[in-house]
Amino acid sequence: MNSIEIITKKKNKQKLSKEEIAYMVNGYLSEKIPDYQMSAFLMAIVCNGMDKQETIDLTDIMIASGEIIDLSKVQGKVVDKHSTGGIGDKTTLVLAPLVASTGVKVAKMSGRGLGVTGGTIDKLESISGFQVETTKEQFIEQVNQIGVAIMSQTGNITPADKKIYALRDVTGTTESIPLIASSIMSKKIASGADAIVIDVKVGNGALMKTIEDARSLAHTMIEIGAHYQKIVKCVLTNMNVPLGYAVGNGIEMIESIEMLKGNGPEDLKELVLTLGSLMVSIAKDCTKEEAYQELKRNLNNGKGYEKLKELIVYQKGDIDQIEVDHFVSIKTPKEGFITCIDAYKIGEIAKKLGAGRMTKEDTIDYGVGVSLSVKVGDFVLENEELMRIYYDGGDISIQEVLDCFTFSQDVGELEPLIMEIIE
Amino acid sequence: MNSIEIITKKKNKQKLSKEEIAYMVNGYLSEKIPDYQMSAFLMAIVCNGMDKQETIDLTDIMIASGEIIDLSKVQGKVVDKHSTGGIGDKTTLVLAPLVASTGVKVAKMSGRGLGVTGGTIDKLESISGFQVETTKEQFIEQVNQIGVAIMSQTGNITPADKKIYALRDVTGTTESIPLIASSIMSKKIASGADAIVIDVKVGNGALMKTIEDARSLAHTMIEIGAHYQKIVKCVLTNMNVPLGYAVGNGIEMIESIEMLKGNGPEDLKELVLTLGSLMVSIAKDCTKEEAYQELKRNLNNGKGYEKLKELIVYQKGDIDQIEVDHFVSIKTPKEGFITCIDAYKIGEIAKKLGAGRMTKEDTIDYGVGVSLSVKVGDFVLENEELMRIYYDGGDISIQEVLDCFTFSQDVGELEPLIMEIIE
Repeated sequence: MNSIEIITKKKNKQKLSKEEIAYMVNGYLSEKIPDYQMSAFLMAIVCNGMDKQETIDLTDIMIASGEIIDLSKVQGKVVDKHSTGGIGDKTTLVLAPLVASTGVKVAKMSGRGLGVTGGTIDKLESISGFQVETTKEQFIEQVNQIGVAIMSQTGNITPADKKIYALRDVTGTTESIPLIASSIMSKKIASGADAIVIDVKVGNGALMKTIEDARSLAHTMIEIGAHYQKIVKCVLTNMNVPLGYAVGNGIEMIESIEMLKGNGPEDLKELVLTLGSLMVSIAKDCTKEEAYQELKRNLNNGKGYEKLKELIVYQKGDIDQIEVDHFVSIKTPKEGFITCIDAYKIGEIAKKLGAGRMTKEDTIDYGVGVSLSVKVGDFVLENEELMRIYYDGGDISIQEVLDCFTFSQDVGELEPLIMEIIE
Repeated sequence: MNSIEIITKKKNKQKLSKEEIAYMVNGYLSEKIPDYQMSAFLMAIVCNGMDKQETIDLTDIMIASGEIIDLSKVQGKVVDKHSTGGIGDKTTLVLAPLVASTGVKVAKMSGRGLGVTGGTIDKLESISGFQVETTKEQFIEQVNQIGVAIMSQTGNITPADKKIYALRDVTGTTESIPLIASSIMSKKIASGADAIVIDVKVGNGALMKTIEDARSLAHTMIEIGAHYQKIVKCVLTNMNVPLGYAVGNGIEMIESIEMLKGNGPEDLKELVLTLGSLMVSIAKDCTKEEAYQELKRNLNNGKGYEKLKELIVYQKGDIDQIEVDHFVSIKTPKEGFITCIDAYKIGEIAKKLGAGRMTKEDTIDYGVGVSLSVKVGDFVLENEELMRIYYDGGDISIQEVLDCFTFSQDVGELEPLIMEIIE
């Protein structure tokens, strides 16, 4: 076996054996195979695909490349949640305490983010003092004591995926269903959950641009899950517009707290209740409707908020100290209905402000970001506020802010947030 | 413009502008773009192709990356020859002096080879003392004095192609018609010829495996040539079996000398006369038939051989001192007609013997190689010699030698050597 032959085989649209995939992945991890061969191999996969068996084999090899977390000491079924990532996606920050408030155990390991804003862990770190590092034993103990923990990935989980993911990010090889599916599923399975609910974002602010691709990704992940006897359910959601109002780290944390206090945006609320009802119904073996109603009650009666406070205190954070910069207000020069708020362009602005990382070495500015003052469907009068820019330097022109919005004399048609549930 | 966006565009099967291609190629040459991005970009081109305009743009950018040779001081039309490479392809060694013997000027710059054997320059260097380095002025002077020169590429011709070619070689991205066509044509056009005759090899021992791909490559190169007002003619020839008997460096040189003495194999003779008649008819503006007859005469009357001796003396070589090792004779354990001699497998054996370079840093063993004792269509009796292995170490099993040959009780059908001429 040699790497050029294996690359050539995939280039020629041939099926690879598990041994061949392992030769490339493990060779890359052990630095026997150089970056430039791996990136050619990845591009051949992006262009020519992988079938179900190859995708499962790749997942298996990535799981086997590192540690596997044993969550059997957590009492009850462990249901994990994942999002393929979008602009303003703070769902986990609301969902984890809210689900835990119903008695379902939430043992969540999250990542730091590359992209327009940080990941869940970065957003939590905008809270002064918040600790995200722990041992596996302490992690399990916390879950058993207060029902919820959100920690940075402990141990050496799927190191092969980590190394390949970093290379994909800089070689234009991110958009591939088998690569995305195996990356997500290997991490989730190695993290030890019994069931996984996945929010698959669809639209110009997401990796999946079309509903067809999103469906295909969902089915692939469900198939991989079935191979490991894990229940996987996918919710396809609209990412043509940002989720909620805030896009940043500290400001998303604050929006999440407001949501749990009952003051959050409708779209975020709908998404949290939909994803949450899937998680709770699996864990409690009840109907989705029963789960939905319980979650809705706990959003209104403050139980979810109480659980968040408990979580923050346990992980040594101070909820009253969240890093947020001063803002600049951008007002509209014309009136009309807002028919579109471009998620991709909003993301680009957040990126320029310094809300995310471009390379793994970058540091995040927790205080910056953009907060929308309007949503799609709103009518704005001249000089009304469109957006607040939480600013600490960065070259943002007023025109590029205005370009995020489409104005019209007609209200237009609202796209639904929840597009499909695939289970 | 940034490299990830350009890679992504080609990944998405979009057409690239000349500026985008230049950004990648020149960025790679100046080391602003790393290997791993270039290899992903090349694989995206391999999988998704390039149209005519993109291919011409790429050719143009590679030509512009280096020096352009001015052959206007050579008296008469300069017709160059190129081969896409095959097993036992020593054609240039015979063709250059033979064509020069008709009075046509042959100013040939050749490369060293990566692959199963060396290139033309390596084969000439198996002659003791033979000099292949020169200045441009001396090169032109030699052509004007004796009508022929075969030199190593002087100056800094198409450095971008050189760097990309080396990367393609180790990333499974060699097999791509636009990449092959632009690589060949950029070198040939920068080398200053007025017309180019190209031997496109087809078969399991060649880069082009099918006649369709070979035709497509030929048409692409003719189109690129037309863009530069250069006549390009292509001969598609069979490379399922090795050309001639010898595969190595010194032994191919000796076979070429024997050919010019009138003792060569029929297939090599036919190829030399076909390619030569195209070259001479372009240069002399005569018919191909007239050119063919003149070349045939000069092969029989020794004029071609005299020209080779003149060339070798001028470039300080000693024709009586050619490096060749001792050989091991492999005989057949069974009798029958030889219906196939696998060019690819023969190449693999030559490679293992050390006749070629695997990396640019490798040294070539001029003395080693394999020499066939039979051709397809021959009937062999038990214990007759099949092959001689010129040996200086290397792990070759008898079985892999025997596996190169297919035996049958029927003579079978002979494939023609010259498959098509496209002009």
